[in-house]
Amino acid sequence: MTKPLAPEIEARVRASFAAQSMMTTIGARMEKLAPGECEIVMPFSEHIGQQHGFAHGGGVGMICDSACGYAALTLIPLNKEVVSVEYKINFLRPAVGEKFIARGRVRRAGKSMSVCEGEVEAVSGDKRTIIAVMLATMAAVPHAG
Amino acid sequence: MTKPLAPEIEARVRASFAAQSMMTTIGARMEKLAPGECEIVMPFSEHIGQQHGFAHGGGVGMICDSACGYAALTLIPLNKEVVSVEYKINFLRPAVGEKFIARGRVRRAGKSMSVCEGEVEAVSGDKRTIIAVMLATMAAVPHAG
Amino acid sequence: MTKPLAPEIEARVRASFAAQSMMTTIGARMEKLAPGECEIVMPFSEHIGQQHGFAHGGGVGMICDSACGYAALTLIPLNKEVVSVEYKINFLRPAVGEKFIARGRVRRAGKSMSVCEGEVEAVSGDKRTIIAVMLATMAAVPHAG
Amino acid sequence: MTKPLAPEIEARVRASFAAQSMMTTIGARMEKLAPGECEIVMPFSEHIGQQHGFAHGGGVGMICDSACGYAALTLIPLNKEVVSVEYKINFLRPAVGEKFIARGRVRRAGKSMSVCEGEVEAVSGDKRTIIAVMLATMAAVPHAG
Repeated sequence: MTKPLAPEIEARVRASFAAQSMMTTIGARMEKLAPGECEIVMPFSEHIGQQHGFAHGGGVGMICDSACGYAALTLIPLNKEVVSVEYKINFLRPAVGEKFIARGRVRRAGKSMSVCEGEVEAVSGDKRTIIAVMLATMAAVPHAG
Repeated sequence: MTKPLAPEIEARVRASFAAQSMMTTIGARMEKLAPGECEIVMPFSEHIGQQHGFAHGGGVGMICDSACGYAALTLIPLNKEVVSVEYKINFLRPAVGEKFIARGRVRRAGKSMSVCEGEVEAVSGDKRTIIAVMLATMAAVPHAG
Repeated sequence: MTKPLAPEIEARVRASFAAQSMMTTIGARMEKLAPGECEIVMPFSEHIGQQHGFAHGGGVGMICDSACGYAALTLIPLNKEVVSVEYKINFLRPAVGEKFIARGRVRRAGKSMSVCEGEVEAVSGDKRTIIAVMLATMAAVPHAG
Repeated sequence: MTKPLAPEIEARVRASFAAQSMMTTIGARMEKLAPGECEIVMPFSEHIGQQHGFAHGGGVGMICDSACGYAALTLIPLNKEVVSVEYKINFLRPAVGEKFIARGRVRRAGKSMSVCEGEVEAVSGDKRTIIAVMLATMAAVPHAG
């Protein structure tokens, strides 16, 4: 994450994220943002659990998909936006941790389509474990608004 | 959905779903349940939105994954439970509707692994539209609890 | 497979398939073709085997991807062609049989992208078994030639 | 690829690959092998083409799936073998090149299941380009033979 991101791009990506009420609902926030890269963090809390009290895999998938989508959004023209065409996620380990960091990275940026890789890390004190990996396809489309 | 489900299986599947606080958080509820089949409904509400106010794709993915997992759970021994190994989802249309019905169906039930198909339908008045399709792999594992 | 396919579309789809030397190499042939649907058959032969002498899963994946792609090609304008963006395949059972029938079906036809479902059936005498299922994304692009 | 692979494991992996007639048919050979890693190379030749004379995407998918599967095989007990549960592949660019190198790497090795990442590189003279990426799930099963 070395190259700087143009301020107007950073502003529009963060504004789009802030407008997603679902992200607020699950307690996710956008952290690092760089050209082709995005990190979204979801702290563990009781209202995002599954049946054993761990974090729900659906929340893990959601922040990873979002991290991939916003990574793609950093690289497309301002007159377009990004929608998820599809994604595939493998869950490697249970979602146990104090917080979960989803990292999305553009692997191939195209004019109309981008392919992204994502991974989610669980953090418990000093321990960090990759708990999920993703491959996602994003499309650049005209603004819906 | 014709064959009846054994009451103790239905009870354990619904109890597991009820214990997932994330499902309560996004307002999802389990409806029909049959051997190898499960339906989960998520009404639209403002707190599960994306940046244009439609339902967030992550919620769509989450209920579809859950519907697949619980469909698999109806067919495995009571001393095991189901975890998502992986899933892949294609979003066909924007998640616009009053409610969203995820249907999971076991395509191949194995002793240690099941393959499931899922789809999500958006309902707006009389109009019903398939907005997402999924292929998922579920593993039967010993109880975590 | 009830609606007829326009003769010029059928001709161009079959010509494209015939031009794929890989399909000849593995012994695959195109059979039924209808709007949004395609069947490709691969008879078992010794030169497409895996380590136990069954058909190689890679051949199964290849004919299923092709069936999905050509199903998509039946529905797009003649000035465009189809490329595979991505696919995901689940292998349900070993590829044991005298022949393998891959069926591709367009689930959502878009101007620039199509989502297809595929499945592969193994045939042994009277016995028919689904051995693989697929979800695939196809893009319509200008002709490369 | 630094750690050495036990000779009996290397021998059994290479013997399994050599027994796959499909790999011979498409001209693929196994090259580097290390714990959790495998490379398979497929030179371009006319009999593995698609309609424009490039290499067929199906061949690309096949060697990448194989590289993932054999990467997994290096890490499992000798009394088990590996089968592909499922994989998902994204095609990033057309398969144009003199040869194609598929690299599989185990991302998470489990007793009964492994998750692998794969990528395929096209080589044309000095130019190297990643043309496909994969996520795959492999299962360790008792010997079929």
